[in-house]
Amino acid sequence: MNITPKQVAEILAQKDNITILTHFHPDGDTLGSALALLRALRKMGKKVNFLNNDPVHPKYAYLWEGLKKQSFKEEFVMAVDIATEELLGDELKQQYAGKIELAIDHHPSNDFFAKKTCLEGDSAAAAEIVYYVIKYLGVEFDEKMASCIYTGISTDTGCFRFRNTTARTFYIAGVMKDLGADTESINEVMFETKTRGELELERKMLENMEYYVHNRLAIAVITREMYRQTGTSEDECEYISSIPRQVEGVAVGITIKERKNGTWKASVRTKPPIDAAKICKQFGGGGHVNAAGCRFEGTLAQFKEKFVAVVTQELS
Amino acid sequence: MNITPKQVAEILAQKDNITILTHFHPDGDTLGSALALLRALRKMGKKVNFLNNDPVHPKYAYLWEGLKKQSFKEEFVMAVDIATEELLGDELKQQYAGKIELAIDHHPSNDFFAKKTCLEGDSAAAAEIVYYVIKYLGVEFDEKMASCIYTGISTDTGCFRFRNTTARTFYIAGVMKDLGADTESINEVMFETKTRGELELERKMLENMEYYVHNRLAIAVITREMYRQTGTSEDECEYISSIPRQVEGVAVGITIKERKNGTWKASVRTKPPIDAAKICKQFGGGGHVNAAGCRFEGTLAQFKEKFVAVVTQELS
Repeated sequence: MNITPKQVAEILAQKDNITILTHFHPDGDTLGSALALLRALRKMGKKVNFLNNDPVHPKYAYLWEGLKKQSFKEEFVMAVDIATEELLGDELKQQYAGKIELAIDHHPSNDFFAKKTCLEGDSAAAAEIVYYVIKYLGVEFDEKMASCIYTGISTDTGCFRFRNTTARTFYIAGVMKDLGADTESINEVMFETKTRGELELERKMLENMEYYVHNRLAIAVITREMYRQTGTSEDECEYISSIPRQVEGVAVGITIKERKNGTWKASVRTKPPIDAAKICKQFGGGGHVNAAGCRFEGTLAQFKEKFVAVVTQELS
Repeated sequence: MNITPKQVAEILAQKDNITILTHFHPDGDTLGSALALLRALRKMGKKVNFLNNDPVHPKYAYLWEGLKKQSFKEEFVMAVDIATEELLGDELKQQYAGKIELAIDHHPSNDFFAKKTCLEGDSAAAAEIVYYVIKYLGVEFDEKMASCIYTGISTDTGCFRFRNTTARTFYIAGVMKDLGADTESINEVMFETKTRGELELERKMLENMEYYVHNRLAIAVITREMYRQTGTSEDECEYISSIPRQVEGVAVGITIKERKNGTWKASVRTKPPIDAAKICKQFGGGGHVNAAGCRFEGTLAQFKEKFVAVVTQELS
């Protein structure tokens, strides 16, 4: 059952002792959405906590600055920015699967796992929907709530670069800026900071980047040894997958990452009209039209050879 | 004399046979502003051309797509995004110094070289001001005008990352998106594309990056040999100066670039509260509080040693 932000607000106004769940490997949108809503509901006098399955990167700590965990007997469980119960992560899934009353989400792939779902698939971020929910709750925005919403929107749009950015995205960002969102610090932390290890990994990746199909396909490889040498991990370096596609003239950029036991994961990024999901489907993977992924067992040489063949066909 | 966007529109409504001047080494804001205004004025039936002192990077060609140079006897000369006549570039300066009737600008350093100036120093881009001028002219925006305004705003804010971004910036970007600005292609060209040479230069720069003052100062060096090996130039790689400051924990990032005849130029980028202009002043340079520059003659070792001493004092 798909409901509107106004209906979400009407339901939440009646509830108390609420737990808000975020998705595993929590990012700026799931956290920003959860914390904006938590702050609004607490302002109404309700008891609310949020839960995450995995540790949260310390750069997000400002989102819950000044907040403490509350004690209460949980009466209502909801999820933000979660498309399926799988994405809760193992622990939260074990605890909450089948028990989630309400979901707010923007992934078109949402499978309506919750009893009620507010799904807006053309929203750039779940935080955009949460903005309207808070408006309908009638809670006045403070600077911290504005920073939470801005975080969700800016991180899910790559700071307004990605194709999901709409006029509404800009509009809400402007309103958050007016309401005191600390956009300067947030942008610096989210988009202007890299660790030395990340830069070193980038350097090593650039060193081995290879070009095929008349320079229209760029392939970079990241081995486990490279993570080890630079003190980085696949998780924190997700942004690095966008680098091969950035090269002028390249239509398909592939970043192949070594995993345990001789398995490989490839992140495929394409420029229109090339379909990344279609390419990955031939390896049993999938994803979005310009960003998809797949896995492979075997040697790197075999994986590359098959990729070059598949992409050659796609580009011809 | 400082006038308002409305007064600019009132003046332009009375004029015809107009030349719009852009600044030397033209960027997205001076070009986007000029072309949006040119398109609006031509829609009103006026004859208008724009002039640039230097060649324009081909990535900007979409701004004047479908337009041709017009023949007319010039009656009115104006400038956009130009703070002083020096910034016209040699040829345009020689031709137009002292003859510019009207300037639209957002640089607080504007020296009111024009007979009338519409200066809004808190505007993120000249294109923001041009947006209001066109509104007051009463010309309906088309998709191409919207793309011109969006180009000026997005390039001068680093795609909404920089501190000059205001609520109004987001608001106008949202309106442009609604009016059909091709934000997806523009973002891809402006923010998601690098040449192989640029990436190779980045890699070489990362290779030699050095850290001082308990890792709070990062210094990168780019030699003329590195430009030669990668087929790049200082001009096109200006963005590279922001990389040393991006490193987590770094408060001052310096990119030292070799110029001709044993001279060096340093681009200094700082995080608040460190003052980049103050650091550069000690080398006879200057600039903004978080981005400044200076020059040096002598050996690289001497330059570095003095920098480390100056920054050590600033950070203590």
